[in-house]
Formats: sequence, structure tokens, C-alpha cells
Amino acid sequence: KVKRVFITGGTHGNEACGVVLAKHFIKTPQLFAGFSFEVSVLLTNVASIASNSRYVDEDMNRCFLQKDLSDPTRTSTLEARRAKELNDVLGPKGSADAADLIIDLHNTTADTGVALMMPPGDELSHAIASHLISLDPSVRVCNWNANQNDWPMLPSVGKHGMTFEVGAVPWGVMDGAVYQKTRRLVLASLQYVEAHNAALARQPPGPWLPTSVQVHAFVRAVDYPRDADGEIAGMIHPDFQGKDFEPLQRGDAAFLSVDGQTAIPFTPKPPPEEEAEAEQLYPFFINEAAYVEKKTAFMLARR
Amino acid sequence: KVKRVFITGGTHGNEACGVVLAKHFIKTPQLFAGFSFEVSVLLTNVASIASNSRYVDEDMNRCFLQKDLSDPTRTSTLEARRAKELNDVLGPKGSADAADLIIDLHNTTADTGVALMMPPGDELSHAIASHLISLDPSVRVCNWNANQNDWPMLPSVGKHGMTFEVGAVPWGVMDGAVYQKTRRLVLASLQYVEAHNAALARQPPGPWLPTSVQVHAFVRAVDYPRDADGEIAGMIHPDFQGKDFEPLQRGDAAFLSVDGQTAIPFTPKPPPEEEAEAEQLYPFFINEAAYVEKKTAFMLARR
Repeated sequence: KVKRVFITGGTHGNEACGVVLAKHFIKTPQLFAGFSFEVSVLLTNVASIASNSRYVDEDMNRCFLQKDLSDPTRTSTLEARRAKELNDVLGPKGSADAADLIIDLHNTTADTGVALMMPPGDELSHAIASHLISLDPSVRVCNWNANQNDWPMLPSVGKHGMTFEVGAVPWGVMDGAVYQKTRRLVLASLQYVEAHNAALARQPPGPWLPTSVQVHAFVRAVDYPRDADGEIAGMIHPDFQGKDFEPLQRGDAAFLSVDGQTAIPFTPKPPPEEEAEAEQLYPFFINEAAYVEKKTAFMLARR
Repeated sequence: KVKRVFITGGTHGNEACGVVLAKHFIKTPQLFAGFSFEVSVLLTNVASIASNSRYVDEDMNRCFLQKDLSDPTRTSTLEARRAKELNDVLGPKGSADAADLIIDLHNTTADTGVALMMPPGDELSHAIASHLISLDPSVRVCNWNANQNDWPMLPSVGKHGMTFEVGAVPWGVMDGAVYQKTRRLVLASLQYVEAHNAALARQPPGPWLPTSVQVHAFVRAVDYPRDADGEIAGMIHPDFQGKDFEPLQRGDAAFLSVDGQTAIPFTPKPPPEEEAEAEQLYPFFINEAAYVEKKTAFMLARR
């Protein structure tokens, strides 16, 4: 039974739709009255919200590994310290006291629609996602790297948790259509949780897990083409822009050279590396501005 | 006769298409060989480029008023100091040594297409704009406020100068289509200047001024709706998003309340204020992220 749900905004302070939505939720607690569970809304990286920046010292959404949260010496950055404060409120991570569900509101400059990022084994988050897909087919499920036993993202502090990545929207922009869609789907998630609690309360308990949901499983990140100095030598090709979650074929124009004219094709890694010759790969987070510094032009998933 | 032209990028360090284009131009000087004038390309706010931010201490594109450039005590911000350095290279402003033409590369999150911002009396910039419109009808001319005798923007340091505002593109994003269009139109501007020089060299000198070009003259900026605490209470309405340079009528839904549901209509200022009852107004810079802190949701122009 779900007892405590957190909705969090501003983990990246310049992802404005999520910040404005969290502020709106904080001012309208009546939206969360009458549920069989408690809903709390909070702003997470308040310093980065104030400066309208992704972060002050480091990306806070990489600060929630158990080993970092429990390391008392890891306090040199504002975000490392704030992550520990948040862990006290939302967690502690891995404990019986941790929140039952965390929904963390993000925006991306990529044309993801609504990409729900979650751990591969999180059944409740997958069930919510299945419900949201029935309401809005632009919702997609992306699984964090299955080769890890822990994840550094904020919602991993809860027993269940997911990131709402909604795009395309620029940093600092309150996009009305994106805002409306996010607000509707977050409220629908809570209604699903309410139905889930009601099903569990029946005798015998009702079923609630979905039969199946299509999952995009993270494979790897792809860097920009670079020149001899290591400088970016090409950008996302106009024909590739906005094609998140559409199949990417070997030889498709992925990049455009900085000469503005030359297409640079996509080349999967040949066997015996991780991408089998015949495997179909799906790109996502195409041209996410914040990933330039992470040397990521887009990510690849398999279904 | 035009002798010295500067192309500048990174006046706002997070407007990535302009930054990448300036870097490309710096690496390919052969593009500017053979002209009857000298072309120099430089990165202006290098500190903000390094931090992928609009500015470090203050908006540098408001630091170029003659009175600030000539005030030796105005050195408290990184941008004020850098503006003085740039004035030495590009100007000095108002002197016979100043650059003949400055093209400053910017991007906006608003759907401006190519908005060329220039002083009302700059005949060369208007002539270039007229040529660019003949090549690409999405080019628009916007005049800086005619009620000022000086302007604080970087290109005002030259004898002639304009800002290329190209959008919509998010902060930090290298958008291939926007990049291609900007590159093509900047090079076409230089070709126009070459033709202009050739016309002036003929005996008798040939005509070069355009017969006419449609101008959007700045009227005023419009703030977001705000609640009793002064917090933003509404965002750009989805029906208004992307409608830059389309006529805005009294009563049109301009904003969407943060409840995600309520439309807030546009209300022009009644006479005897500056907007005559029957006057048609044209919005631009709709939902420019950087103008949130300037309390500007969009700007209004008359034609």
C-alpha cells in the first residue's frame, strides 16, 4: 500500500515547466485532498532555481548513489550537501522509512514527448506508466542502465520512483502545452496509485500489474563528431532532429558538419561489441542541451 | 565604402548556434578572401561561452552605451570590463576608427525566424536586410526604440550594425536548420556589402539603397500576469506560442494561468496611452527565456 508520495521540481533549476508546476502544486494542496495516501510537493535544488541554471557546483541528479549519500566526507559541493538533506526528507534511501513513490519533474530540449525514466525492476512505476500510455500514446518508458545495482538519480531514493522527462522545451521556458500535459499526467499518476491502493485493500486483493509495457532499455550514449582539437565538429542533422524513439538505421544522417553542408552518418558499433549486427536501435535525448558537457549527442536504446 | 566588417558571436554565451558559427568562421578564413573589405570574426563574452550561460555578472548586450563605455569607474562587472575591451577593438564607438559594420550573432527561444535588430536610421543595415528578405521571406526587420539617441547593444559600437536574432532554438542547442540558415544569410550579407562597394566605386556611383523595407518598430514590452506575491501567475498560451510577427488582437488568449486551464486575454493600453484604439500591434520575442528576468513575456511592435 502506498502511503507517502513526493512530487519534486527543480532538481535542474532551469527546467522551468517542472519548477512552475511544483510551485503551483505547493500553492494548491486541495488537489491532493481525499487520497488514501499523503502527497508532498517540494522544490529540490533551490539554489539552481534561483539562478535559473541546471546546477551550481555539479549535476544534483547524479548525487544520489547510496555510497555518496552515506559518505560523510562528500560535502564539497552545494548539490552533494543538498542531496543529503533531501535524502533525510525523502528517504533515507534503502530504508523502511523511504517514500513509497517519488515523481521528479524534468524538462528536456529533446523531442521526447513524455519519457518516463525508471529502474528496470520498479513494478509500480511500470504499472503507472502503462496507465499513462493508455491516456496518452506519446508517453514512453525508458529504463536506467540495467548493469548497475544503484542509480544516482533523485527518485532512486524512494521505494519506487520515476523521472518525468517532458520535451521539447528550452531551458528557462514555461511552455504552456508541455505544462498542461505534464500536469494532467502527474495527477493521473496519483489517481492510478489511488486505484492501486483500493485494489490492494479488497479481499482478496485485486490485480494491478499491467500485462506488458514497451520498454526502451538504455544501451549507450553517442558523442558528437570531434576535430583533432577535440572540438565539436558536427551538430545533430536537421533530418534527425526531433526523431526521438524512431528507429535509427546504419548510414542515416545523424550529424551535420559545422560547414553547414556535409552529412555525417550513424555507424553502430560492429560485433562483437554490444550492438548485434541486426539489432534495431532507438535514439532518444537527441540534442539535449545539458548533455553537451557530458559528451552525449543522443542516447541509444533497444526495445 | 565599407572597409572593416566584424562578425561577433557569444555576446550571450549560451546562444550556441551563433557561438559555433563564429568558431567555424574563425577556422575558415578562406570564406572571407577576395572581398574588397576586411572581415574579422571574434568571440565576445568568452567567459559566458565557457560557462554556457547568458552572462557572468550582467547582460553584456546592455553595456555599450557611450556614457558607460567612457566612464572609467564603470568596471565592477566582468561584462562592463569586457565591453570596454571590445570597444577598443570594434570602435571606439562614435569615432572615425569604428568598424563600418558589425553583425552580432544571437539566438532566441522565440519563434522569430531571422529577426534583424537595428537602429531606425541605419541605412546600410536596412539595405542589407532588404536583400536578405529577397532571399528568405522569413527575415524581418526590427528597429530599436526610436526614442533613444544611443543604444546599449554591441553592434551599436560600429558605424553600422545589426543583431541576427534567429529562433526558435533553446539555450545551449546547436540546431542544424537554424545554423544553416544563419550561415547562408551572414555570407549573403557580405556579398551584398561587396556589391554595395562595387556600386559606390562606379562613375557615377550606382544606387544601392532599397526603395522600401517593412519595419517593426518597438512599442513596449509586456510582462507576465502576476499574483499578489509578484510571482508569475500565467505563461504564454499554447495558442499564442510561436505567433511572432502575427497580428495580436484585443481579447486574444495571450496567457495560460498556472492552473493549466484558464486563458488570460491580451489587453492593449487604452488611449490616451501610446497604443491608439484602432492600431494593429505585432508581438515578437514571445516566450524568450532570457526575458523572464527582465519581466518581459513578449514585445510589441507597430509596422
